[in-house]
Amino acid sequence: MDRITDLEVRDIRFPTSLDRDGSDAMNPDPDYSAAYVILRTDRPDGLQGHGLTFTIGRGTEIVVAAVMALRPLVVGQPLAAFTGSPGAFWKHLTGDSQLRWLGPEKGVIHLATAAVVNALWDLWAKIERKPLWKLLSGLSPAQIVELVDWRYLSDAMTPSEAQEMLDRLVSTRSARESEIIASGYPAYTTSAGWLGYSDDKIRRLCREALADGWTAFKVKVGADLEDDRRRCSIVRAEIGPDLPLMIDANQRWDVAQAIEWVQALAPCDPLWIEEPTSPDDILGHAAIARALAPFGIGVATGEHCQNRVVFKQLLQAEAISFCQIDSCRLGGVNEVVAVLLLAAKFGVPVCPHAGGVGLCEYVQHESIFDFICVTGSHEGRMIEFVDHLHGHFVDPCVIRRGRYQAPTAPGTSITMKLESLEAHGYPSGEVWKRLRAKKP
Amino acid sequence: MDRITDLEVRDIRFPTSLDRDGSDAMNPDPDYSAAYVILRTDRPDGLQGHGLTFTIGRGTEIVVAAVMALRPLVVGQPLAAFTGSPGAFWKHLTGDSQLRWLGPEKGVIHLATAAVVNALWDLWAKIERKPLWKLLSGLSPAQIVELVDWRYLSDAMTPSEAQEMLDRLVSTRSARESEIIASGYPAYTTSAGWLGYSDDKIRRLCREALADGWTAFKVKVGADLEDDRRRCSIVRAEIGPDLPLMIDANQRWDVAQAIEWVQALAPCDPLWIEEPTSPDDILGHAAIARALAPFGIGVATGEHCQNRVVFKQLLQAEAISFCQIDSCRLGGVNEVVAVLLLAAKFGVPVCPHAGGVGLCEYVQHESIFDFICVTGSHEGRMIEFVDHLHGHFVDPCVIRRGRYQAPTAPGTSITMKLESLEAHGYPSGEVWKRLRAKKP
Repeated sequence: MDRITDLEVRDIRFPTSLDRDGSDAMNPDPDYSAAYVILRTDRPDGLQGHGLTFTIGRGTEIVVAAVMALRPLVVGQPLAAFTGSPGAFWKHLTGDSQLRWLGPEKGVIHLATAAVVNALWDLWAKIERKPLWKLLSGLSPAQIVELVDWRYLSDAMTPSEAQEMLDRLVSTRSARESEIIASGYPAYTTSAGWLGYSDDKIRRLCREALADGWTAFKVKVGADLEDDRRRCSIVRAEIGPDLPLMIDANQRWDVAQAIEWVQALAPCDPLWIEEPTSPDDILGHAAIARALAPFGIGVATGEHCQNRVVFKQLLQAEAISFCQIDSCRLGGVNEVVAVLLLAAKFGVPVCPHAGGVGLCEYVQHESIFDFICVTGSHEGRMIEFVDHLHGHFVDPCVIRRGRYQAPTAPGTSITMKLESLEAHGYPSGEVWKRLRAKKP
Repeated sequence: MDRITDLEVRDIRFPTSLDRDGSDAMNPDPDYSAAYVILRTDRPDGLQGHGLTFTIGRGTEIVVAAVMALRPLVVGQPLAAFTGSPGAFWKHLTGDSQLRWLGPEKGVIHLATAAVVNALWDLWAKIERKPLWKLLSGLSPAQIVELVDWRYLSDAMTPSEAQEMLDRLVSTRSARESEIIASGYPAYTTSAGWLGYSDDKIRRLCREALADGWTAFKVKVGADLEDDRRRCSIVRAEIGPDLPLMIDANQRWDVAQAIEWVQALAPCDPLWIEEPTSPDDILGHAAIARALAPFGIGVATGEHCQNRVVFKQLLQAEAISFCQIDSCRLGGVNEVVAVLLLAAKFGVPVCPHAGGVGLCEYVQHESIFDFICVTGSHEGRMIEFVDHLHGHFVDPCVIRRGRYQAPTAPGTSITMKLESLEAHGYPSGEVWKRLRAKKP
C-alpha cells in the first residue's frame, strides 16, 4: 500500500515589483510568490505531488508555517485515504478542530489547505498518467459528488441535485472532450491593462494582443477616474466596439462610489466590473449588481472569496453575473468543484481568476472539467490569462489564438523547474541574494 | 519623543483539553492558548504594552509568525503615531498590500492584528494610568470616530452619523460612569453548560451559580438532540421559568437543520440560539432568524465573525438579535468600536463573546465603554463569563453577584503573570515539559 512519507514546503518569491507587473488599485507592488508543497511517497517510481498557493510577497512565510501545521495530517497516511475518498480526506484536513479556530476555512489556514490539497491531486494525476482535467472527467457523478464538503450548502443545493445534474451530461462527455482537444478553451488577456503601464505601452500591448488572436481584454481601474476614462477609451478604441472589455477595481470602492464610478465608465461598454468593493460584502455586491443591471454591466468577483459558503450567498443574492473561482483561495480542487456545481445550478458562468504564479496552469484544468462534466457549455465563459512567469513551469499552459489548449502532461501543470525553485527560494535563493547585494 | 523599540511575541498554551473545559459541538478538546505580544519603548518608566489573541492550541505558532510579519510596521515607530491617530495607525497595520492578500482582514493575519492593536492600547492606557474603558470614555466623539476604518461601511453608516450619535450622550457620560462603578455590568455564565459535563455536574454548577447571584445561563447544544433536550431541561428546571437561558450550537448545523433543532428546544424557552450555522452565512442566519421569530427565539453570532464588513451585513439583513463581538477575532479595539457603533445604529444589543483566555478581561472594557459613550444603556445586554484561567492575570476581571465590576488598574487587564507566561510557554515551558514526560 502506497504511503505519503514526506511533505516539504518552500517559500518561493519572484521580484515582480521591480517592473510593476501586476500593479492594481490595491496592490501597487506585488512580488508574486508561492508557498510551494512537495509530497513524497514510498512508491518505487519516485513520483512527487507538487502544489502551490499564490501569495504576493511578505507573509508567504506565514502560509509556509500553516502548511507545516497541516503536515501531520498528511505524512504517514496511505495514499488510498485520499484517492479512495478525496472528499473525506478534505474534511480530515479542514476539520482539525484546533486549526479550524484560525479560520474557519478562510485566510492563511485555507490558503495552506489549497496548496496541500492541490499537491495531493497532482500526485494522484501523475500516478494515473493523466492531466488533472482528464482524471476529473473520468470520475463518475457519484465520485464527483463525494469530492464536495456539503456542510452549509443544503439550503442552496443538495448532493442528489448535483448528482442529477452530472448524470445528464455523462453520455455526451466524450464529444466535448474531443471538442476541447481540437479547439481549446476561450480566454481573455489582462496583460495590457495594468495600472502601472503608460498609455503607449497599453496601446502597443493591445495591438500585439489583437495580432496574437485575443478577443477579450481586461483593464485595471479604481485609482483615478479621469485616468480610468482615458485608459479604458484607449483600449476600447484599439479593440473596436464589438469585443468584450472588462474592468477590475480590486476592492477599491464603497458601494455607492462603485455604482457612481462604473456608471461613469459605462460609455466604454464594459462587460463586467470585477471586485468593485470588499470581497466580504455580499449584500454590497448585490446592491451594485442591481444598480448596474440597467447599463448592461455585470458584477464579477471571487479571487478573494474565501470559501464555498460565501460563493453560495453571492449566487443566492444574485450578486454576481460572473463567478471567478480562484484555485488557491478556495481550499483546492475539491472546493472549486463545489463552487462549479453551485454556479451551474444558479446558471452563472464561471470565469476563473488567473495570473499570479501558477493560477493559469491550475484553472485551465478546472474550466475544462466544468465544460466536459458540469455545464456542457463554455458559452459566455472565459479564463483569465496573464503572460507572466510561465517559463518557470515544466509544463506551462499553452495559448493559441487566445485559447487555452488542453494540457496533455500528467498532473496539474504546476511542477516548477528545479532551477527556478532554487533561484527564487526566499530569502536565500540566488535572485534574492543578488538583489540584496545591489541595495545601497 | 517616545518610540516603540521592541515587539516580542510568545506562544502560550494551557492544557485545558485534559479536563474537557470548553468542550462544545465543534471543539471537543481545545487547549486554550494565546499569541501573546509584549511591546517595549524607550521611555524611562519601562512601561510595556501587553496584548493577546485567543487560540485553542495547534496553530498558535502560525499566529506568532503573523505577528512577526507585522513587527516591522510597529518597531521604530514613535508612540505618538498611534496615540495621535489610532485609526490611521490601524489602517497602516492592516493596509500593507502584500500582507493584506492573506486576508484581507480575516483569519490568521487579522488575529495577529488584534494582538498587536490591543497591545498598543494597553501601552497607551498604562501610560495614561487609566483602565482602557476610562481612556476610551475620555475621548471626544470626533476622536472615537477617528478610531474606525470607515472603508466599506458607508452604505450602512457614515462618520457624521456616528458623531451625532456620540454627541448626544456626551453630557450624560459621567452619570453612567458613576452607575457602572457602583453597580457593575450585567453578565451571564457559561460555566455550567459545556457539552462534556455530566448531568450531575450541570445540576451542581447551576445551583452554585444561582447561589453566587447569577441570573442568566448558557448551555452548549448541537451534538445530539435528545441529549440537548435533557440538558436544557435540567438547566431550565434548576433556574426556574423566568431567568434567561441561552443555547449555543457552535456552527454545527445547516440552515434547515438549525431551524428544526431549535424549534424542538423551544419548550425550554431559550432567549437566543448562538452560532446556529456557518459564521460566514449571513443569508443563512437571516433565514434562521425569520423562522425562529414566531417562537420568540433570537439569533446571536459573532465570535467567529471576521470583521466589521460581515457584522455590517448581519445587521443590514436583520440576521441577528444579539451582536457578539470578539475582542481578538476583530482587529482589536478599533474594529470593536466600529461594530459597537454599527450595532447601536441598528438597535441591536451587543453581548460580547468571552471565556477562552483573556476574553473576559478584554470585553468588560468594551461593554462599559459601549454603555457610557455609545448606547447609554445596558438594557438587554450582558457579557459572557466563564470561570477559567483568570488566575494567570495580574489584574483579572472581578465578578460580584453575576456582574462585572469596573476595572480600576491601568491598561486592558490582560497582563499575564510572568510565572504563568514562563510555565505555559509552548513547547518549552515547565507545564508542557511535564506533560511530555508523563506520556508513555
